[in-house]
Amino acid sequence: MKNILIIGCGLLGSSLLRRISKKKLAKKIFIYEKSKLNISKIKKLKLSGTIVKSLKEGVNNSDLIIFCTPMSEYKDIILKINNFISSKTLITDIGSSKVETSKIIKKFLKKDIHWIQSHPIAGSEVSGPEHGKENMFTNRWCIIINEKNTKKDNIKVLTKFWKKIGSKVVVMNPEKHDKIFSITSHLPHLIAYNLVKSAQDFEKKQSFELIKYSAGGLRDFSRIAASNEIMWRDIFFNNRNNISKAIDLFVKNLNQFKKDINSKNNKSIIKKLIQTKKVRSKIIKLKQDIDRPDFGRN
Amino acid sequence: MKNILIIGCGLLGSSLLRRISKKKLAKKIFIYEKSKLNISKIKKLKLSGTIVKSLKEGVNNSDLIIFCTPMSEYKDIILKINNFISSKTLITDIGSSKVETSKIIKKFLKKDIHWIQSHPIAGSEVSGPEHGKENMFTNRWCIIINEKNTKKDNIKVLTKFWKKIGSKVVVMNPEKHDKIFSITSHLPHLIAYNLVKSAQDFEKKQSFELIKYSAGGLRDFSRIAASNEIMWRDIFFNNRNNISKAIDLFVKNLNQFKKDINSKNNKSIIKKLIQTKKVRSKIIKLKQDIDRPDFGRN
Repeated sequence: MKNILIIGCGLLGSSLLRRISKKKLAKKIFIYEKSKLNISKIKKLKLSGTIVKSLKEGVNNSDLIIFCTPMSEYKDIILKINNFISSKTLITDIGSSKVETSKIIKKFLKKDIHWIQSHPIAGSEVSGPEHGKENMFTNRWCIIINEKNTKKDNIKVLTKFWKKIGSKVVVMNPEKHDKIFSITSHLPHLIAYNLVKSAQDFEKKQSFELIKYSAGGLRDFSRIAASNEIMWRDIFFNNRNNISKAIDLFVKNLNQFKKDINSKNNKSIIKKLIQTKKVRSKIIKLKQDIDRPDFGRN
Repeated sequence: MKNILIIGCGLLGSSLLRRISKKKLAKKIFIYEKSKLNISKIKKLKLSGTIVKSLKEGVNNSDLIIFCTPMSEYKDIILKINNFISSKTLITDIGSSKVETSKIIKKFLKKDIHWIQSHPIAGSEVSGPEHGKENMFTNRWCIIINEKNTKKDNIKVLTKFWKKIGSKVVVMNPEKHDKIFSITSHLPHLIAYNLVKSAQDFEKKQSFELIKYSAGGLRDFSRIAASNEIMWRDIFFNNRNNISKAIDLFVKNLNQFKKDINSKNNKSIIKKLIQTKKVRSKIIKLKQDIDRPDFGRN
């Protein structure tokens, strides 16, 4: 990789910037960022890389372009860069849903330009370049999206890139990706938002102060529900078919739980509560979390 | 307080034991524990206090008795101690739901014996005395339950006790308690169990490996869903009326979310996702969590 352009330098864009710079993975790093606030933060943080004023300047000088903006901005940026991008440039992104993006790329991106989607499984409830971290992607999965016409050479290039970033790479098609993450990520976030919303509704109706007693569970959900609203709106809209199905499965199971609770069905409840523990052990075994009890963060 | 008996010495019982001993809040501490495994752990950990072989020995010698067993065991223990408890002894407990326990106490506890319920808002997904911590209750809320015939003097005694433990005390009636915690604690735990259950169902149906990609959200829920199944069955059963209502509110809101997502109702979604962020700020302001971003625990 010679030169890299990062479009959108928030939490993840700036983390990539830090890592690429630290590991010297590019000759030059360009940053295109439309938010003046973010630009001033990047300058204040003294992050390395050249902030370009026009997309053209960045695109013309780069071999790899990484979209790190909300997915709803892809189309507009594609229409702009179509005017000056060369077919030698490889494009990727870090968006959290893939089928819809694939459609947008096919519909709007100039022919002969290669865009292979990536999805590094990393992030936080906070946004902005000030929260970026050089080791954001270390030992995390990065999904690379393989489609019918994807060139194998380009997958190799991207795989090499993400491995240098520190990620573990897995290749899959966009349909499978969107199904998996509708359950492991998109539904959990929606559930968290929905729980906090329900607590707000309940508080209003009962005129109880209840948020102050949130340490017993609500607290942990509220953290997840503080995630960036633009990013999550885009994910919910883009992956709406899979998320809809996930909601239906979830509601079906929840109503079954309700039935078991109301009828005090001891056997059924205990079986479920024990079964779910097994997932926890698996998650720890797979090093997706650590085996340290959580007592709330003090 | 002269002598204290702790019945059930698991995560919370052993944390109380550690704290009472450290702060010298009792002349003598007695422990009644029916699990041989826990007794051997307590001995190995060299926790202070006298392990009694019979309830009678502990009850006869104590001024305060603290039930730290699962709530489903209260009735049996009450029936036993009725035979030798004196009216000078004060009883409390640390159970997470209160209306049902109140009924059991009224129905089964010998007349003239005072039991004032407590609920310290503390815990973890792990169980057992080896996970107890001396500062488990420090700066945490402890709810003390006030009922029609509760003696004010006894509330004073218990308030003083929990404040010495390090908790912030608030007094409320059992009905209000159970409503509040159905939303802030019981529903969140049920939702976490239900999400993990749904992920398991999905994995089976699709034959996808998906647990390994749980870092995007599922991971955090799986931790909560690893909590003790006996304790949570008891809570779900005891507070089933409030939890049922909470489920209904939650499902109603979730279906509205689904509708907004499917119709790509931008205004409604963004409004909700911004509103829920406010709860997060409130929780941090109320010191129920810290303002440090979470990137997954490494």
